[in-house]
Amino acid sequence: MAKKYVYLFGGKGIKAEGNAGMKDILGGKGANLAEMSNLGIPVPPGFTISTEVCRIYFETGGLPKELKQQVLDALEKVEKTMGLRFGDPEAPLLFSVRSGARVSMPGMMDTVLNLGLNDDTVKGLIKMSGNERFAYDSYRRFVQMYADVVMGADAHALEEELEKLKQAKGVKLDTELDAGDLKKLVGILKNKVKKLTGKEVPSEPMDQLWGAIEAVFNSWNTPRAITYRKLNNIPDDWGTAVNVQAMVFGNMGETSATGVAFTRDPATGEKVFFGEYLSNAQGEDVVAGIRTPMPINKVGKKDSSMVSLEEAMPEQYKQLEEIYHTLESHYRDMQDIEFTIQEGNLWMLQTRTGKRTALAAVKIAVDMVNEGLITKEEALLRVDPNQIDQLLHPMVDPNADKEVIGKGLPASPGAAVGKIVFSAEDAEKAASAGDKVVLLRIETSPEDIHGMSVAEGILTARGGMTSHAAVVARGMGKCCVAGCHDLSIDYDKQECVIGGHKLKSGDYITLDGAKGEVILGRCPTVEPSFSGAFGTLMQWADEVRKLGVRANADTPKDAETARNFGAEGIGLCRTEHMFFEGDRIVAVREMILADDEEGRKKALAKIMPMQASDFEGIFRVMNGLSVTIRLLDPPLHEFLPKTDEEIEEVAKGLKTTPDEVRAKRDELHEANPMLGHRGCRLGISFPEIYEMQVRAIIEAACKVKKEGVVVKPEIMIPLVGHVNELASLREMAERVASKVMDEYSTNLEYSIGTMIELPRAAITADQIAKEAEFFSFGTNDLTQTTFGLSRDDAGKFLPEYVEKKILERDPFMVLDQEGVGYLVKTGVEKGRKTRPNLKVGICGEHGGEPSSIDFCHRVGLDYVSCSPYRVPIARLAAAHAAINNK
Amino acid sequence: MAKKYVYLFGGKGIKAEGNAGMKDILGGKGANLAEMSNLGIPVPPGFTISTEVCRIYFETGGLPKELKQQVLDALEKVEKTMGLRFGDPEAPLLFSVRSGARVSMPGMMDTVLNLGLNDDTVKGLIKMSGNERFAYDSYRRFVQMYADVVMGADAHALEEELEKLKQAKGVKLDTELDAGDLKKLVGILKNKVKKLTGKEVPSEPMDQLWGAIEAVFNSWNTPRAITYRKLNNIPDDWGTAVNVQAMVFGNMGETSATGVAFTRDPATGEKVFFGEYLSNAQGEDVVAGIRTPMPINKVGKKDSSMVSLEEAMPEQYKQLEEIYHTLESHYRDMQDIEFTIQEGNLWMLQTRTGKRTALAAVKIAVDMVNEGLITKEEALLRVDPNQIDQLLHPMVDPNADKEVIGKGLPASPGAAVGKIVFSAEDAEKAASAGDKVVLLRIETSPEDIHGMSVAEGILTARGGMTSHAAVVARGMGKCCVAGCHDLSIDYDKQECVIGGHKLKSGDYITLDGAKGEVILGRCPTVEPSFSGAFGTLMQWADEVRKLGVRANADTPKDAETARNFGAEGIGLCRTEHMFFEGDRIVAVREMILADDEEGRKKALAKIMPMQASDFEGIFRVMNGLSVTIRLLDPPLHEFLPKTDEEIEEVAKGLKTTPDEVRAKRDELHEANPMLGHRGCRLGISFPEIYEMQVRAIIEAACKVKKEGVVVKPEIMIPLVGHVNELASLREMAERVASKVMDEYSTNLEYSIGTMIELPRAAITADQIAKEAEFFSFGTNDLTQTTFGLSRDDAGKFLPEYVEKKILERDPFMVLDQEGVGYLVKTGVEKGRKTRPNLKVGICGEHGGEPSSIDFCHRVGLDYVSCSPYRVPIARLAAAHAAINNK
Repeated sequence: MAKKYVYLFGGKGIKAEGNAGMKDILGGKGANLAEMSNLGIPVPPGFTISTEVCRIYFETGGLPKELKQQVLDALEKVEKTMGLRFGDPEAPLLFSVRSGARVSMPGMMDTVLNLGLNDDTVKGLIKMSGNERFAYDSYRRFVQMYADVVMGADAHALEEELEKLKQAKGVKLDTELDAGDLKKLVGILKNKVKKLTGKEVPSEPMDQLWGAIEAVFNSWNTPRAITYRKLNNIPDDWGTAVNVQAMVFGNMGETSATGVAFTRDPATGEKVFFGEYLSNAQGEDVVAGIRTPMPINKVGKKDSSMVSLEEAMPEQYKQLEEIYHTLESHYRDMQDIEFTIQEGNLWMLQTRTGKRTALAAVKIAVDMVNEGLITKEEALLRVDPNQIDQLLHPMVDPNADKEVIGKGLPASPGAAVGKIVFSAEDAEKAASAGDKVVLLRIETSPEDIHGMSVAEGILTARGGMTSHAAVVARGMGKCCVAGCHDLSIDYDKQECVIGGHKLKSGDYITLDGAKGEVILGRCPTVEPSFSGAFGTLMQWADEVRKLGVRANADTPKDAETARNFGAEGIGLCRTEHMFFEGDRIVAVREMILADDEEGRKKALAKIMPMQASDFEGIFRVMNGLSVTIRLLDPPLHEFLPKTDEEIEEVAKGLKTTPDEVRAKRDELHEANPMLGHRGCRLGISFPEIYEMQVRAIIEAACKVKKEGVVVKPEIMIPLVGHVNELASLREMAERVASKVMDEYSTNLEYSIGTMIELPRAAITADQIAKEAEFFSFGTNDLTQTTFGLSRDDAGKFLPEYVEKKILERDPFMVLDQEGVGYLVKTGVEKGRKTRPNLKVGICGEHGGEPSSIDFCHRVGLDYVSCSPYRVPIARLAAAHAAINNK
Repeated sequence: MAKKYVYLFGGKGIKAEGNAGMKDILGGKGANLAEMSNLGIPVPPGFTISTEVCRIYFETGGLPKELKQQVLDALEKVEKTMGLRFGDPEAPLLFSVRSGARVSMPGMMDTVLNLGLNDDTVKGLIKMSGNERFAYDSYRRFVQMYADVVMGADAHALEEELEKLKQAKGVKLDTELDAGDLKKLVGILKNKVKKLTGKEVPSEPMDQLWGAIEAVFNSWNTPRAITYRKLNNIPDDWGTAVNVQAMVFGNMGETSATGVAFTRDPATGEKVFFGEYLSNAQGEDVVAGIRTPMPINKVGKKDSSMVSLEEAMPEQYKQLEEIYHTLESHYRDMQDIEFTIQEGNLWMLQTRTGKRTALAAVKIAVDMVNEGLITKEEALLRVDPNQIDQLLHPMVDPNADKEVIGKGLPASPGAAVGKIVFSAEDAEKAASAGDKVVLLRIETSPEDIHGMSVAEGILTARGGMTSHAAVVARGMGKCCVAGCHDLSIDYDKQECVIGGHKLKSGDYITLDGAKGEVILGRCPTVEPSFSGAFGTLMQWADEVRKLGVRANADTPKDAETARNFGAEGIGLCRTEHMFFEGDRIVAVREMILADDEEGRKKALAKIMPMQASDFEGIFRVMNGLSVTIRLLDPPLHEFLPKTDEEIEEVAKGLKTTPDEVRAKRDELHEANPMLGHRGCRLGISFPEIYEMQVRAIIEAACKVKKEGVVVKPEIMIPLVGHVNELASLREMAERVASKVMDEYSTNLEYSIGTMIELPRAAITADQIAKEAEFFSFGTNDLTQTTFGLSRDDAGKFLPEYVEKKILERDPFMVLDQEGVGYLVKTGVEKGRKTRPNLKVGICGEHGGEPSSIDFCHRVGLDYVSCSPYRVPIARLAAAHAAINNK
């Protein structure tokens, strides 16, 4: 028997051939259409061509030969169900053809509606609907769409013909054109298509169908779809399914409508049925954001001029409400549904798990646990750790003086403060120059994604809560205010007017995505609070996770932020950052420029008390928790002045000559500083530097201990490659520490350990563990040496590597588990073999990246350490790891 | 029972407590004294204090308490054997106290002779010998030596007293002083010692003995001994034994003598009994090189004025000859022996394996196999691979016009051409500035070793074949001409006269170490020949070894040298060196400065034929052997000009502006070029470069194949870290290769592989092997990344690391088996798992280093590749590895 490529769904009392569990084969949309039919929900009948066909299509360049007959068979069954025939000039069955990948890729791929219309069948449609205008409007829509999507004709050139006709008629709106105009337009459009593409729009319905099917497959590989997949880590080989479904019409007059709805508010997570609709319209009108839609129910009305579906069609609304309950309790998750009402009949076109903001994700997850719908573990897995990033960043300060100059829809929460840009290109340019920008567009399209991804926030003049801008921004966790009618943009002049204020490119504005406000200038922001649902979820995460979560923090202030975010200690306190502050750099340079140990010691004596006072501050904040302090790591030349001006200033300050400063700089110059005289190598060459630092740590600890603070310093020696380095410095540190403790007549619990950041350290971890009470994997440097790749220089070719698929991901962002991870695993295993109670953590950037955290869980690390703002992400990711690896 | 620290030897018919197998405990000298006594050879009785005592002494700061009684017991037994008593004023037993480590460290540690003399016992010595002058001469020698070695008095200050006395007496030679003078001198010396050190020379013999024993232990840790150990890789914890032995006297008149001999010629390996002696002298007089000694036999006479021992004391000479036969057949190796004849009685003081030049080592080993003394494998192990380096370097051209201005002893063969320096310090300074130098000294002392080690050769005015200069130079494999009487040096003026030619510091001379000639100016040299014993030994090595030996060669000339040295292929041909030659660099720069692929391709088209012609040359030379060619590796900026002048020139040549060249240079600048845009990363960014190189290789191969040359190119992709890099470039290379082969209508056997030089490559070798037909471990770069250590920058701290024992050896010279080696082993195992017939080699510097070669053998590499001059070393080391790992 031939392989099954085609799966039927829909129609009354007929079991669909697929179900919700078959997303890999049917795509999300197809699987859910099947599932809905199985639930007895009214779904227009149709069939799904599997994703496998897409893969075959790209591998072989053609469709499998068995497909044709399977499609014909399915078509016949749909015809039977609907009691209509495809291409029947009396009562024609029309089809929509839509893409549907395993996960939703909103707006990324193509759709063709009203398939089956031609000069003959349009007459049948007139007969059936008794609405000539509707029929010709459908026909001209079909011609435009088909020409654009399947034949590659320029959509704008076709749209122009519509505009010309309106001008000729002296009308403004499409709806002011009558049936005759539209009939004429069909002819004009067909000629135009012929001119543009050299081909006729096929009139044979079967030709139309095959053309549309291939076009959907091809749309999988458009640049914008590829970009979207790259941004969202969707494998290229998943492919899309094609859903061929009997058309139902929301544009058959005032008893018809089309809409989208969410079973809960996708922005806030509130348990309200939430949606928008347009009467007398087809679905694409809502999604494209061209007309601003009406709320689905009374609760959603922003002003009294609006007419909700609840009011306009109460019966259908009630039926919709019942369906939403069915769907939510069936799927046990918030659903994003599409419906059409054709002359009073409700049809469900789609249901899928609804995209939501992090705020909503958290609230819905926690609420559903409380409602008994899902378990705590399911709730935790419902929230993507990366997504909650948006909850951890500042919001517009509610108490700030602010001049609100415009209002729009609160499409995606958070605050965005930045310079105005008017195009994706400008956004990229400014962002890569280090500017924070807000992207202003009349409406966004998939072509703008690369600009949206670098902007702080997005403001659009048109479109609703489900417009392209809103959906994409929520997915990215970016603040978005959509459909702001107070905004008008002049792209050419690079200017806009918002509520009467003329603003230019580069001027600052602030967006409040939670309220939909546009604020003049730069508005102060405040830290988010972690109470409510978020707090509950975090508590559940803490109950489940096995990994500890610490933060990388160099100052008392950072330490405080970290602790507020739930950090259970400091995993990396970099002492060199303290060297740059204020007057210290003078003493540091004095130390470096000294000719001998004597001179260095003199300068170090000045630095010591400053460094000790930093440590005191951090110890106080972290009362009761461990603090890992890394001794000086960067090469000394990093502290020397670079420009002639700076050099002169330094020379003056240190009472030496610029030439001497230059000579020292040249002497310290290194061909490959990353592989140079740094880390513990400095401690071995200049023991007095590390001695000073150990003294500062232990003195500070002794002092705060006397204040009653519970202090647990962990002294970390960086860049160890051979156990002898650590042995030698450990001896030094212990000697200094016991001397200081004697001086303070007290005793401290402190430990000495090392960063594992060189391949050799990982390989010889069994030996190094003899001298180390803890390991902290410095995966930034370990990635550099394992790959032989300088982070500073990789920018020239690493993007190309990811582009060309030589590397799946940037290894500095996502831990390379195969290579670097192998060394981490080896290091943990060998280290624990020598010292079973060895404490092991990670303090590279990867410590805050969910897939890397999962790896850390699997190899048995004790904790991860990340930047303070990522601590909650790490807590949730650690919980995910614990659940997923059960 | 207490631990045994003291071992008896010597005396007639008494079995020694030790034997030759106990070198670790007794040191070389002690073990061989015991062995000799066991062989029935006349050895003055005595005892050895074990090396363990030395270790205890340095660990605890004192001697083990059981030692005293054991020494007293042993002493009593020696007294019994000799029929004399230590400290007996009537017939005193005297002792020598000498150091003796596991391996010989000539002149490095201290010795005290005539121990037991004081104002009373000297009278007994007079009675016994009937020679008052001899007795007081021994006494004053004892006082001088004891004061110097044990009490730390300034030896020169004491020597001065001797000179003063001679002046006062109006005599020139020590021998002109009579008994009364020497008696007086003893008193003067004692007073001087008191003045210099504040202490009396102890008169109690037991005090003298313990003082001397401790002094010998202490001499293990003098700076010169430490330096020697470092240069010779002798572990510090081996320690020295102390040999306390009854004195016999070579200075008891004309029937007494002392001498050293080798059972074969240590310079050439000829099978002649070879030695020197001094009549009426103590042994130290010979070794110190103060008097030029006489040859031991007639064969050794350089002129007829000399009197050999064979002539002077024929009976004792005959006995000595018998002993040498006994010793050589017993030890089955060439022996270095010391003897003393006391009033006609022959005593053997020492036998040990004789140091020899590489030339001698090879000849002796091969001869002994032919004599049936040893096996071929033993012969191979007798020659240190590192040592034969000296056979592989040029010798003075026998056909050159040369002006010989002086003659001395041919103390160590080879040629040295360099600038004259007169001190070890100047030698070091000049050598570190890149100058080749010849060190000229009246005589050398252990303080000069650091200068000798950097000089090309050594020339001394005084001393024999066993003088310090001769022994050390042979050990170092350096050319040495010793005892050149035509040389006089004025250190203050930094001048010398050689055979009437006045020469200054910085003037060039040439030494011919094989002939003992000093040649004016720079004399041409020739390559050594590999026939005779050397050829035989190499042939045996080739029969035994499992590892292939290839060479790293970039040019046809290097390839030819390599093939002459026995290379079985080229393991690394670096294409970038070809980029610098002649006009090519212009085209290369044009390529780099091009704005686009078009421009690059134009420039590459110019480079292609030049590169192809290089390859043709190499293929022809390596007819029938594999040639591994590495595609471009260094970052492009390495090819750009550096100075303003160069930049201007280049700009002119390329018809661009200096600013544009500078801009390109700045654009290409990298923070860490070692970890930057290089290796296969260039091939991926600029495929046209690698395409050109592959085309050049395959075109060259096709051409020479048509000439009848058997060509086996191996294309090596550098710096692969991920299998995808290799997969992508392999596809490119195969595409280009089959195109070229089509063009030439021929087919080639070629293979594609990669360097494993990044930790990630080794870790993921199983994946990389899918795309690679061979691996070549680039252990230079692999060491850099594994250690996180830039070879260019390590100079600042790596010497200190070795000094401080943090690293045992410089990992760039000797493979770090624990770290880098682990990755090599992992790479081999994983690679072979995927592809069992994977060809695996090494092409880093380590490929020519014997201990690293042993490692390569153990992990199952197919071949090592090293510089052409090291090929024979590698062949021998590979044979050692095969034998030692059986």
